[in-house]
Amino acid sequence: MKVNGKPYRTIWIHPQNHKIIQIIDQRKLPFRFVIEDLIDLESAEKAISDMLVRGAGLIGATAGYGMYLAALNLKSENFKGELMVAGEILKKSRPTAVNLKWAVDRQLSEIEKLDTYEECVKALLETAKTIADEDADMCRMIGEHGFEIIEKISAYKKGATVNILTHCNAGWLAFVDYGSATSPIYKAYDSGIDVHVWVDETRPRNQGARLTAWELLEHGVPHTVIPDNAGGHLMQHGLVDLVITGADRVTKTGDAANKIGTYLKALAAKDNHVPFYIALPSSTFDWNISDGVAEIPVEQRDGREVNYMSGFREGREQDFLIMPKGSNVANYGFDVTPSRLITGLITERGICDASETGIKTLFPEK
Amino acid sequence: MKVNGKPYRTIWIHPQNHKIIQIIDQRKLPFRFVIEDLIDLESAEKAISDMLVRGAGLIGATAGYGMYLAALNLKSENFKGELMVAGEILKKSRPTAVNLKWAVDRQLSEIEKLDTYEECVKALLETAKTIADEDADMCRMIGEHGFEIIEKISAYKKGATVNILTHCNAGWLAFVDYGSATSPIYKAYDSGIDVHVWVDETRPRNQGARLTAWELLEHGVPHTVIPDNAGGHLMQHGLVDLVITGADRVTKTGDAANKIGTYLKALAAKDNHVPFYIALPSSTFDWNISDGVAEIPVEQRDGREVNYMSGFREGREQDFLIMPKGSNVANYGFDVTPSRLITGLITERGICDASETGIKTLFPEK
Repeated sequence: MKVNGKPYRTIWIHPQNHKIIQIIDQRKLPFRFVIEDLIDLESAEKAISDMLVRGAGLIGATAGYGMYLAALNLKSENFKGELMVAGEILKKSRPTAVNLKWAVDRQLSEIEKLDTYEECVKALLETAKTIADEDADMCRMIGEHGFEIIEKISAYKKGATVNILTHCNAGWLAFVDYGSATSPIYKAYDSGIDVHVWVDETRPRNQGARLTAWELLEHGVPHTVIPDNAGGHLMQHGLVDLVITGADRVTKTGDAANKIGTYLKALAAKDNHVPFYIALPSSTFDWNISDGVAEIPVEQRDGREVNYMSGFREGREQDFLIMPKGSNVANYGFDVTPSRLITGLITERGICDASETGIKTLFPEK
Repeated sequence: MKVNGKPYRTIWIHPQNHKIIQIIDQRKLPFRFVIEDLIDLESAEKAISDMLVRGAGLIGATAGYGMYLAALNLKSENFKGELMVAGEILKKSRPTAVNLKWAVDRQLSEIEKLDTYEECVKALLETAKTIADEDADMCRMIGEHGFEIIEKISAYKKGATVNILTHCNAGWLAFVDYGSATSPIYKAYDSGIDVHVWVDETRPRNQGARLTAWELLEHGVPHTVIPDNAGGHLMQHGLVDLVITGADRVTKTGDAANKIGTYLKALAAKDNHVPFYIALPSSTFDWNISDGVAEIPVEQRDGREVNYMSGFREGREQDFLIMPKGSNVANYGFDVTPSRLITGLITERGICDASETGIKTLFPEK
């Protein structure tokens, strides 16, 4: 999507030098837009572990390119063995990211039957590109399908502004391009539909206020940042036509784990007859789990994300204490929205009910 | 309640000099505990308008003492006329605070039939004390009644920890003592019941993280500050036994306007069969309104409260930017929780259903 009027992806090959991969250092957003060069295994591993890149899709793509960068610096006869070691290093850079393992294993299987070093490097670059392109395509398709929902609401409202609420960042920054929850919104905006986005701040890490707001601002999409507390009031007063969020994991029955607070918005949407959609690439489904609330373990994160807050002042980003030092804090990473509160799931294959039957209509092979 | 082991109210007469009224500068909490002297009309007016004091009960009490302080400095024959002018100045210090007008008018009517300046000053001091004492007593009674709910849950749980969630600050800092939502909690804690409080941060002004956490910490009540997003998850997992919040205005049918985000917690409580109570002094009822969502206008506050945040670093409190400068923000002050989501109202007269019939049983004269 656009940054300062120019189209970007979150990861790309340096235009003058195909031995350099470039990324956006997302830790510095929204205050500074900094592009970093990845030149070897170490810089790729660091980009993932230090969270310069985040989001399942982008982590997978970075791992794909990371394998290619690792190969560039291998000269020994046993480069395949060394690549397996490189893969293990990448896999450990963020142990819970399933796309990471998937991308590394895909790269390793691509070169399995190849002989020469040159063939392997070429294949690794091509596959890394493919992994990135597939991710972008999948998000684009989510946008195509989700767009139909927005288009219908716009028609029903006779062209008046369609107000869409989103929580956290399921934007292009979390993928290679387009995003999941944001993809239908970008498509609608680019198609000339009058859209406006309510951006939940998304405490405690503020991914909404920092990343989603930045994305929408740079692409030109009208939006308003609100405290996470505001969504219920907005829905009570007819100021939200549609909610779309992403998901970290969706059960085969349609329960959705997503950033903490999503469940509260789903309850408010239900109470006010506002359609509530989850947008996800099919890789987000967990086909082994049925009861999201009971079975999905919810990670507790560092309390420092709650009692300190990061902000910009005097030309630099700093941490500030925002409550009494002696008070305990708790920091649950996400919550689970039961399928009964979800109007539908928007996937790259189309839209389905958030139910085992609904999901099976789109994914009969599962 | 206690601060650093010593009992305090939010407003009191200087122990050595009854011509000085003392308050806590609440703007500096939780980072600094600063006591300010009020010595005349100007300092009382400033304490209210600059929000050194806040909360309906405390604003009323400050206005009561403000009239006394104003009188201390009047010498002319026409001191009653000058006191009426002083009253007008106080009323304008926070135009939307109904307790302010009420306290000023009560003081003026007290002196109406008195003759000498000395009689008036004495009456103004006595009435100011009475206003403060009545506020504290009312909160204490809310505590007595609400305590029964906590006691029952504790018995049902066979003495295991009773987890209570609260939103914003309806604590002793907002009144003269005890608070509304916190009063049953303090009573339970002081009675030896094992209680633990989940304190909603309460974005964007963070009154929960700043004030409620500070109160509970100083009094010794176990508590944990959480992002506003977390309550739904906690309730889904049986980690909340009871929700108690305060209110800004409650309709005669039991709809409750309170700090933005309260409605979301009420929805989650309903969805998880967690009792949800509103604690309020009866002065909070608006006997003229039936439909809270439709009829109560919701104030929009300064957007700077959303895109900037206040925190402590390097020995002082500072504001810092927390989102892109170009993004719009919206800042709705409160929301309305419909009575159907409220288990009951805890008032100084007892507990009743959040319904016109329920409220009439406690307030038949209305």
